[in-house]
Amino acid sequence: MSFVIKSTAERAEIWSALFAAHLPDEKIEIWPDIADPEAVEFLAAWVPPPDLGRIFPNLKVLFSVGAGVDQLDLSGVPDHVQVVRMIESGLTDGMVDYVRFSVLALHRGMLRYVAQQREQVWQAHAYRPASTLTVGVMGLGQLGLPVLQAIRALGYGCQGWARSRRDIAGVRTFAGPDERDAFLAGTDILVCLLPLTAETAGLLARPLFARLPRGAALVHCGRGRQLVLDDLMAALDEGMLGGAIVDVTDPEPLPAGHALWSRPDVLITPHTASITQADTGGRSIVENVKRYRTGEPLIGLVDRTIGY
Amino acid sequence: MSFVIKSTAERAEIWSALFAAHLPDEKIEIWPDIADPEAVEFLAAWVPPPDLGRIFPNLKVLFSVGAGVDQLDLSGVPDHVQVVRMIESGLTDGMVDYVRFSVLALHRGMLRYVAQQREQVWQAHAYRPASTLTVGVMGLGQLGLPVLQAIRALGYGCQGWARSRRDIAGVRTFAGPDERDAFLAGTDILVCLLPLTAETAGLLARPLFARLPRGAALVHCGRGRQLVLDDLMAALDEGMLGGAIVDVTDPEPLPAGHALWSRPDVLITPHTASITQADTGGRSIVENVKRYRTGEPLIGLVDRTIGY
Repeated sequence: MSFVIKSTAERAEIWSALFAAHLPDEKIEIWPDIADPEAVEFLAAWVPPPDLGRIFPNLKVLFSVGAGVDQLDLSGVPDHVQVVRMIESGLTDGMVDYVRFSVLALHRGMLRYVAQQREQVWQAHAYRPASTLTVGVMGLGQLGLPVLQAIRALGYGCQGWARSRRDIAGVRTFAGPDERDAFLAGTDILVCLLPLTAETAGLLARPLFARLPRGAALVHCGRGRQLVLDDLMAALDEGMLGGAIVDVTDPEPLPAGHALWSRPDVLITPHTASITQADTGGRSIVENVKRYRTGEPLIGLVDRTIGY
Repeated sequence: MSFVIKSTAERAEIWSALFAAHLPDEKIEIWPDIADPEAVEFLAAWVPPPDLGRIFPNLKVLFSVGAGVDQLDLSGVPDHVQVVRMIESGLTDGMVDYVRFSVLALHRGMLRYVAQQREQVWQAHAYRPASTLTVGVMGLGQLGLPVLQAIRALGYGCQGWARSRRDIAGVRTFAGPDERDAFLAGTDILVCLLPLTAETAGLLARPLFARLPRGAALVHCGRGRQLVLDDLMAALDEGMLGGAIVDVTDPEPLPAGHALWSRPDVLITPHTASITQADTGGRSIVENVKRYRTGEPLIGLVDRTIGY
């Protein structure tokens, strides 16, 4: 019986130590050095090897080392394998900090000051109190919910939208396609934290931007394929949007020479909003292995019919 | 008896309306249209006219429309005139938001990503959890104290330094020159919110930077004359500092062509961290005029022996 780690050297080292301390009976192996593939029950990977069912015929659980599982070709994962996405405090904290930064930067016009610095222009612009702005968070799951609560604690108005109904004390929430336009109409800064699914691919496009108040801003830290870059640039050019902070793009990395790079009204970060932390991420995996061994339900189990 | 406003047209309009509603017996005049200079008891200004004692011989209170009074030549203000600095929630909220933004930006390496975007480079860098960083706030007054508490609520370690002893529940504080080096040694991100005095002019210079952990970052939203720009640039060049966000400079505006403008490791904002908001600032003045009329102590009264 063994647990295979296919990830960075730092994670492999820290997770091996955590297993030694907390799960001494489990054998750890570092990909690609596998003694007996038939003994492999667990695999932690961002992208697993192809032919998973053939290579590890007795695999029980596939752990994604990231918050999403959209990088996985689930059709290549045998049906009997449980797929688990990463839920860990470091990943949540990182996203909360990134969105706090992004909302504050857009609220206070920081992209404009970055551009003015390049032109060596010293000119202040008025700003509105945080309480007069509404931040709308799309996606109210393991990341979206704590993000919404953190942004609310900064003094912004907040509202949320999700595929299905979520009740959050003190926050107006909207559900499903029917309520999306009403949500967008009241959103000054839109934060996308949706999982990538067939429904959300290409969602951040002109028809959606047109429903926002004129000059609204976008923070995109969902998945690259949700955002149509040409539509984003056109919406900015037309004043439909006033600025954007974008952590994920399609394709990724954003190619050198792409027009998005040179826009003063867009800040691009290289898919770094939130990174699984080796220590807290390892503890999350340890907990799930214990749960598996005692027959408890796994935390972060993916519903393969909806893809997250 | 009259109250003279020497400020922006927006403030003059809003403050006139507030006086009409809350202090109907006070006469408001807008500088420079003064019917009877001898009747002027109150003046609200950023920089008052010279020869203040001669122009308004019966002036009782001079209100600074900003958080500081260092722009005033107090030697030109007659001794019997009470000088009041602006304390209002909008000014505090603006500064809290600015410092939140700045700490998050420096923590998450955003100046580097701005520079990478200019070079069209997609490369992520590891970051530390907020809880492992200590933010040190210099100046624990009307702005410094709420800033420190707001930064602490974001999950950072926090400590404070002030000229005199301040006890803040749950926060390690340091007082006076003797404890400054110990404060600096434990500070990863230094926030300056000190008033400008003879003691603080030129304080942010090489000897101080050398006491910080190597690669520490600076957020400067005190006053321009506190920061020696040549020393800042040298400290950045030598790796003594890792980055800076600077809202105030000496001189101000920072002249075009100054070397600070083109540094990728510095973000410059044009003295916009916190701006007195017309509505809340006006309410603060109304409150103080009522206090004056009923003989209560004024809020924000300046101790002219120490200059703030």
